[in-house]
Amino acid sequence: MREPAVPVRLGMVGGGAGAFIGAVHRAAARLDGAFELVAGALASTPERALASAAELGLPRGYPSWQAMLDGELALPPEQRIEAVSIVTPNHLHFPIARAFADAGFHVVCDKPLVHSSAQADELVRVARERGVVFAVTYNYSGYPMVKEARRLVRDGVLGPLRKVVVEYRQGWLATPLEAGGENRQAAWRTDPARSGPGGAIGDIGSHAEQLLATVTGLEVEAVRAELTTFVPGRALDDDATVLLRFRGGARGVLLVSQVEIGAENDLRLRVHGERGSLSWRQEEPNRLWLATLDEPAQLRSRGQPYLGAAAAAASRVPPGHPEGFLEAFANVYAGVAAAIRGDAGADYPGLADGARGVDFIEAVVASAAQGGAWVNVRPRA
Amino acid sequence: MREPAVPVRLGMVGGGAGAFIGAVHRAAARLDGAFELVAGALASTPERALASAAELGLPRGYPSWQAMLDGELALPPEQRIEAVSIVTPNHLHFPIARAFADAGFHVVCDKPLVHSSAQADELVRVARERGVVFAVTYNYSGYPMVKEARRLVRDGVLGPLRKVVVEYRQGWLATPLEAGGENRQAAWRTDPARSGPGGAIGDIGSHAEQLLATVTGLEVEAVRAELTTFVPGRALDDDATVLLRFRGGARGVLLVSQVEIGAENDLRLRVHGERGSLSWRQEEPNRLWLATLDEPAQLRSRGQPYLGAAAAAASRVPPGHPEGFLEAFANVYAGVAAAIRGDAGADYPGLADGARGVDFIEAVVASAAQGGAWVNVRPRA
Amino acid sequence: MREPAVPVRLGMVGGGAGAFIGAVHRAAARLDGAFELVAGALASTPERALASAAELGLPRGYPSWQAMLDGELALPPEQRIEAVSIVTPNHLHFPIARAFADAGFHVVCDKPLVHSSAQADELVRVARERGVVFAVTYNYSGYPMVKEARRLVRDGVLGPLRKVVVEYRQGWLATPLEAGGENRQAAWRTDPARSGPGGAIGDIGSHAEQLLATVTGLEVEAVRAELTTFVPGRALDDDATVLLRFRGGARGVLLVSQVEIGAENDLRLRVHGERGSLSWRQEEPNRLWLATLDEPAQLRSRGQPYLGAAAAAASRVPPGHPEGFLEAFANVYAGVAAAIRGDAGADYPGLADGARGVDFIEAVVASAAQGGAWVNVRPRA
Amino acid sequence: MREPAVPVRLGMVGGGAGAFIGAVHRAAARLDGAFELVAGALASTPERALASAAELGLPRGYPSWQAMLDGELALPPEQRIEAVSIVTPNHLHFPIARAFADAGFHVVCDKPLVHSSAQADELVRVARERGVVFAVTYNYSGYPMVKEARRLVRDGVLGPLRKVVVEYRQGWLATPLEAGGENRQAAWRTDPARSGPGGAIGDIGSHAEQLLATVTGLEVEAVRAELTTFVPGRALDDDATVLLRFRGGARGVLLVSQVEIGAENDLRLRVHGERGSLSWRQEEPNRLWLATLDEPAQLRSRGQPYLGAAAAAASRVPPGHPEGFLEAFANVYAGVAAAIRGDAGADYPGLADGARGVDFIEAVVASAAQGGAWVNVRPRA
Repeated sequence: MREPAVPVRLGMVGGGAGAFIGAVHRAAARLDGAFELVAGALASTPERALASAAELGLPRGYPSWQAMLDGELALPPEQRIEAVSIVTPNHLHFPIARAFADAGFHVVCDKPLVHSSAQADELVRVARERGVVFAVTYNYSGYPMVKEARRLVRDGVLGPLRKVVVEYRQGWLATPLEAGGENRQAAWRTDPARSGPGGAIGDIGSHAEQLLATVTGLEVEAVRAELTTFVPGRALDDDATVLLRFRGGARGVLLVSQVEIGAENDLRLRVHGERGSLSWRQEEPNRLWLATLDEPAQLRSRGQPYLGAAAAAASRVPPGHPEGFLEAFANVYAGVAAAIRGDAGADYPGLADGARGVDFIEAVVASAAQGGAWVNVRPRA
Repeated sequence: MREPAVPVRLGMVGGGAGAFIGAVHRAAARLDGAFELVAGALASTPERALASAAELGLPRGYPSWQAMLDGELALPPEQRIEAVSIVTPNHLHFPIARAFADAGFHVVCDKPLVHSSAQADELVRVARERGVVFAVTYNYSGYPMVKEARRLVRDGVLGPLRKVVVEYRQGWLATPLEAGGENRQAAWRTDPARSGPGGAIGDIGSHAEQLLATVTGLEVEAVRAELTTFVPGRALDDDATVLLRFRGGARGVLLVSQVEIGAENDLRLRVHGERGSLSWRQEEPNRLWLATLDEPAQLRSRGQPYLGAAAAAASRVPPGHPEGFLEAFANVYAGVAAAIRGDAGADYPGLADGARGVDFIEAVVASAAQGGAWVNVRPRA
Repeated sequence: MREPAVPVRLGMVGGGAGAFIGAVHRAAARLDGAFELVAGALASTPERALASAAELGLPRGYPSWQAMLDGELALPPEQRIEAVSIVTPNHLHFPIARAFADAGFHVVCDKPLVHSSAQADELVRVARERGVVFAVTYNYSGYPMVKEARRLVRDGVLGPLRKVVVEYRQGWLATPLEAGGENRQAAWRTDPARSGPGGAIGDIGSHAEQLLATVTGLEVEAVRAELTTFVPGRALDDDATVLLRFRGGARGVLLVSQVEIGAENDLRLRVHGERGSLSWRQEEPNRLWLATLDEPAQLRSRGQPYLGAAAAAASRVPPGHPEGFLEAFANVYAGVAAAIRGDAGADYPGLADGARGVDFIEAVVASAAQGGAWVNVRPRA
Repeated sequence: MREPAVPVRLGMVGGGAGAFIGAVHRAAARLDGAFELVAGALASTPERALASAAELGLPRGYPSWQAMLDGELALPPEQRIEAVSIVTPNHLHFPIARAFADAGFHVVCDKPLVHSSAQADELVRVARERGVVFAVTYNYSGYPMVKEARRLVRDGVLGPLRKVVVEYRQGWLATPLEAGGENRQAAWRTDPARSGPGGAIGDIGSHAEQLLATVTGLEVEAVRAELTTFVPGRALDDDATVLLRFRGGARGVLLVSQVEIGAENDLRLRVHGERGSLSWRQEEPNRLWLATLDEPAQLRSRGQPYLGAAAAAASRVPPGHPEGFLEAFANVYAGVAAAIRGDAGADYPGLADGARGVDFIEAVVASAAQGGAWVNVRPRA
């Protein structure tokens, strides 16, 4: 377990009282002692923002993200935050991320990154010019066995890839939870103004896309999509079926739903090559199945000596001591801290993942709008 | 366990030495003592046909199916076979089934039924005119827990259905097994002349289609299909992704593959309604998962007192004594025997299933040929 | 799948209408067409015995087992039954088995074999003198993956064995089902006069003992037992914990219960050696786990090419087509048929297993009666 | 997720560089921000102790625990540590815990608590007199679904309890890892001087005992034990089988091993009552099985609305987002922090658990020494 002597000074935008994901980010940042949360603009009204900061005992609470940006820049560099974590609803990601990156702060931003590929281009430009670390919290890529899956593919254990199936199944939106607005999680996720053009496809499809991209290294060339809204009155899709064509000829299927009753957070990946297959499931994250031609199936387990270096480095406790969601999330933060401290090999999902995810959702929505035509996804350098 | 005093006299066409499925049909027919195999034309050459009959100790071996038809008709009715089981490659189903049905014999035919919906129409006509029992061995519908799943849907436990996902995954054709012709199973299944217009979609996609139809009662209105051939040089598809639209508005996805290394015979069904979901997997056939809104998931188990009548009737041994593939297959035969003996409520997949399956494959192949356009499936009365 | 041209002529004692295990034996005997049931004395009263025979359409029904013995001996050898299957309650096994074996008939007898090791000795003597095949239906040893487990141990894959844990858990006797006598299965199994000195330990503990003996080849040297009766008023144990010492120094634990609510037929075996471990579970019988030092765990699957010869020979259908309880049972019968036809390598549990099982139960009951003292199990030649 | 504004000031003894469990304690303490680690005597030599403190960036590093005790007492109360966490090898627990408790510091101590019940008595006395919070890190009791299991038993869902089976299986000591002394974890755990009289029974059997005690509320009245050392040359047991008699008549079995190759950290609990059973497994900690008479088995899942209050309070993220080992560990620390802040209902394993665990191991070792005689466990007030 890594425990650095000097933590990175972190600020946070959004994530105040009652916000699920803000608390997750803070716990993940705290787990290894790699970050110290010293400032925050934690809510969208000044009163709630300041109250939340007090409740968490933050050294510096601000009424708004603009105030935090100004306030921190006014401090001497050795006190100033080094990085900002943006955990607001999606529509606020862009202005905040651009402003902080432009001012030279490292950025950790929730997913999906922004609403359009044009916005993503702009963030890429700014981050490159300012030389800041920019991470997108695709937290599922932080699981040790996802890193092992990536290694097995890269090492050619599966042979050339043929087919990838990724599924992300939830059931919590099977009823019109957003009606009335009391369930804030449901409300903003089903509101196009705050969530962007994708519903389920944006909220969890973006994770599915990034997981397959990370593990396989394949690039989506074109998509053919069907977006469905099963719950009457809902403004965005709650179910998606997307056919994928990858550059080089491999095929894929991405299935996403938030109306499958009984499904909790069932993200699954199967990768099939000419010589073998692997499969992984987020709800049993410490295991990875590997099948190769004519040999007994293997169950690879987190923490074991036969794993690759990245999986080993991402693991905190021995085999059989289950690591879970928070640990994977913390691996993203640990990678960011390492990058900020200058580690060139730091392993975390970055702006390229975020931008590619935006391109993907854009293409999916376009395909669905065209009745399921194949729509090309533009290549990114 | 049912054990009738007087078995049905059965003849068989195809299924001689070395034919996997013929031996399965015989074992299934034997299991309950409901059939007595008394005649056979077990291979495509007279020599092999007669040798196979002798090897199995059949009372009456014939050199060809035509000879068997003539020979049995020449016997007095109380000695003559009552039913014929057709287990040849697909392209021979049609002429044999038509001839025997037309002569008044009950028919058990392997799936997929025939190569075209026109042929299916013709069989429907003949069977109706002659009043014979005509079964198609969609054996997976014989599992007790599939019958339980059907009951739960019919009883409205899931509410109105929204979405169905059926997958049938195998890996045994991940390499060009058919090359050289020594693997006879692989050879005829990948040969359009013998297998029909569908490869994986015909061979196992037909099972997947029938499973979802049986359990859900939904009718496919239109399909949108992508058929892929991953193994170079193969003449038919070995992978299929099919989007489904059901009459009444439900949606579905059918995923079929024979190139997923490590997959054995992984047929899975998930049915999602407005109030609940169920899922079943052929490789763990004695269990059925049921999830309803906000309640703990239930694991229903074959043989338990809380199950419905059809599941109970289809079960031979107590809970925890695993029933499997042969027992499910035998349930199809048991249903046929009951129907032949006049049981109006006999439970088995019939000609309607077979004909509908042919319509489905036809539509899938047409959709794929049109670049994945939506293609309507004609309704059957 | 094996399908002999000439079946063995079989008679049956016990197993009439409503008897679960009789129908199982018949289905198992029928599955491969290796036996033809031609005679029976199927119940304990003449009327019910004859009615059951008629109901099953048996060629020769007898009012009692003595009448069957006399009647068959009066027939010419080529019509006479060759073997008898004894599926009565336990207390009748001994006189029937001795009489038929003594008359030169092959015997298939249910387990546990007899009530005392003296009776077992007598059967061993008679069978040896008459040269008959004598099988005991320890059906769980018929599973292909149990044969694979046995092979892995014999081949030294686990290294010298250290420890064996076998569990057999059921829940169906968690309430006083036997009260009133309507549940005949429960009634005779909890009645010392019919079941013998062991309750759960005799009924299912005998299976557990035989499973571990078959797979490991270890011999129990001494036992230390605690037998418990949890249901008030029950006359025999319904739960057992037995510590085992094997010759050569290995240790073991045998846990048996019939009062664990929710358990169906949960027979499990774990074998631990110096270099590896294996585990198998009857409710998922087509799989076998193998773990060796520092390597990924392997999941071995029925029907795959990497398995040993015995597992391959015992398997009827391809991987992923689940075989179950009846198929394993049928493997015992198939072995018996092969032995009767002169196959010296026929693979089935025999009289040695049955006798050893009786010794074991005797020792367990003695240990429990002595407050859990270590009691030696006598070695058998 | 709980995130207190003012963390508890914590010191640590032991757990320096390379010590697995020290890092785990720190991460668990950090996860919710409930503790601030401000002082430490992290190793057994002054040099390593000071170096470790510097490496972790601790505000106050001390060369020894005695120096830390003196140093902290010399500080004003508002700077002084409030609690100490003791993560040394077992033999040092007693003097350190006594000294800190006696000086009025709250104590978190690793398990097993001490080497003898006399020492445990002394700690109980001191803690009571000084009024300090004293926790023992039986971390598995921190899992939400363990708390749910406890609730179901207390609410009588299972009816009166009959039988409990607890297993703790590991394989990492299947070879003489301790030879040579390089593996420090193996070395001290197999050394009676540092580990105490129990090997596997002390190291992991203590967890098993506490898990069953927490969930069932049963008290062990007597034990009958077999302790085995399978690895030649090892000084302590590496395998244990213990029969349990509980006050009130229930029975139990405790199986512990560290030589089962392939087992990682496989702690399992089954509880059987007159009306139902439950089972839980540490390697799938977010699920709990419940079976009741004649109803479908239920799979209860962490985070769902049907769970009890304690399970809900112990859960940080929604269903399907796996929580694991660190989160359960952190729940123990969270409970301690709550207790220190005066929460009378704080939920954590305390000194009573630690003392009872010592009594248990003592009785087990005594039973094994007497050849497996029943040995009474003294009741604690």
